[in-house]
Amino acid sequence: MIQALLFDVFGTVVDWRSGISKDFELISKKYGLKKNSKQFADDWRAEYQPSMEKVRSGKREFVKLDILHDENLKNISNNYGLDILSNEDWDWLVKSWHRLPGWKDSSKGLLRLKSKFIVASQSNGNIELILNMSKNSKLYWDMILGSEVVGYYKPQPEAYLVACEKVGLNPNECMMVAAHNSDLSSARRVGLKTAFVLRSHEHGVNQKSDLKPSESWDYVANDFFDLADKLGCEKEVTLNGI
Amino acid sequence: MIQALLFDVFGTVVDWRSGISKDFELISKKYGLKKNSKQFADDWRAEYQPSMEKVRSGKREFVKLDILHDENLKNISNNYGLDILSNEDWDWLVKSWHRLPGWKDSSKGLLRLKSKFIVASQSNGNIELILNMSKNSKLYWDMILGSEVVGYYKPQPEAYLVACEKVGLNPNECMMVAAHNSDLSSARRVGLKTAFVLRSHEHGVNQKSDLKPSESWDYVANDFFDLADKLGCEKEVTLNGI
Repeated sequence: MIQALLFDVFGTVVDWRSGISKDFELISKKYGLKKNSKQFADDWRAEYQPSMEKVRSGKREFVKLDILHDENLKNISNNYGLDILSNEDWDWLVKSWHRLPGWKDSSKGLLRLKSKFIVASQSNGNIELILNMSKNSKLYWDMILGSEVVGYYKPQPEAYLVACEKVGLNPNECMMVAAHNSDLSSARRVGLKTAFVLRSHEHGVNQKSDLKPSESWDYVANDFFDLADKLGCEKEVTLNGI
Repeated sequence: MIQALLFDVFGTVVDWRSGISKDFELISKKYGLKKNSKQFADDWRAEYQPSMEKVRSGKREFVKLDILHDENLKNISNNYGLDILSNEDWDWLVKSWHRLPGWKDSSKGLLRLKSKFIVASQSNGNIELILNMSKNSKLYWDMILGSEVVGYYKPQPEAYLVACEKVGLNPNECMMVAAHNSDLSSARRVGLKTAFVLRSHEHGVNQKSDLKPSESWDYVANDFFDLADKLGCEKEVTLNGI
């Protein structure tokens, strides 16, 4: 019945907090900044939902996430002394999201899932961002969908429904895979199947949210290997006879 | 300098004439039809450019290729006695384009090229079509671009330029790979690099067109292996350490 898996990316497939902190530390070293890098990542990420909300509510035309990341960094740049960055370093930092590392099971887990299902990213990230990240972190999708292809930001219902339409499947033939209960809830509301994957360190060791499923999702897994096992995928990944 | 390879698909990566003929033969057997299957493939394909031209010229809103394939099949269906097909068989035949086989070097050749470059399809096929074909025929793209993502049909200049923009690169950082001189000519006109790959049997053993480069393309190759060699890619494909 399920033919395609649609993945949330930030937090579910990649560890944005570690990636952003690491790049901020490199910039801090270069410019002698002394701020907490984890707090920086959290503060930048905190601008994420409000910035998309302007697009979702129709107050603003659709713009891609790279542009919102740039604007959001400007919003917090005073607090972190980033106004002294060269244009080149600023752009490099904005593109930190293009270089986020996968969780340790992400590359191989996606390949295992890919042997049985269509695997597609369905993120709020734009094509270039997800493409570069995927090349860097060896995430081998069948298709990069997401906000720029479907024209909507999650959790708008169209973000899920247009994604299903693009791959030519009914919503109940697609399963949203996410570490966030709210994302799954929105996907279920429009008819998709749902899989919760626990990412207990997305927000660091003291994480309080999304430590367990808030509804009876179709699948609940500890990581992508566990999900692949539960979905009956091959244990080993191969080049599929090529 | 070159960071992404954008591929024409029908004829360059997959052998549409053999695939369509084969499926028509299965239908012919079931319904006792007696027509030439290669001629059928050629006739259906002959409707392709005129049907897109209505969209390119602005006479018609953008529609995806699956819809044009359905309409084009209706145009020739009388000549081939296809009016007796059940709805299910008709739809199966329309989707023959979703099941086209790759040339013998396509799967492995793309993987070799992928180890060094972003490889993306830039076809007039819609997402679902290219996605299903790629799953069937083991074509592992980094990204499926194409008409439905960029909103234009080749050879409109925007078809090439928007594709480059989506992957965040300048036109001269992208190379169009095609077996058709006309496609490369249009890509070059807007600044892309060009690679001609010889597919001398796309139109059968008596093919007259595209048997040699019509301009001094940046690369000329006999197949994807030859192109991978000329671009300095690894000889063997691996799972890249996963």
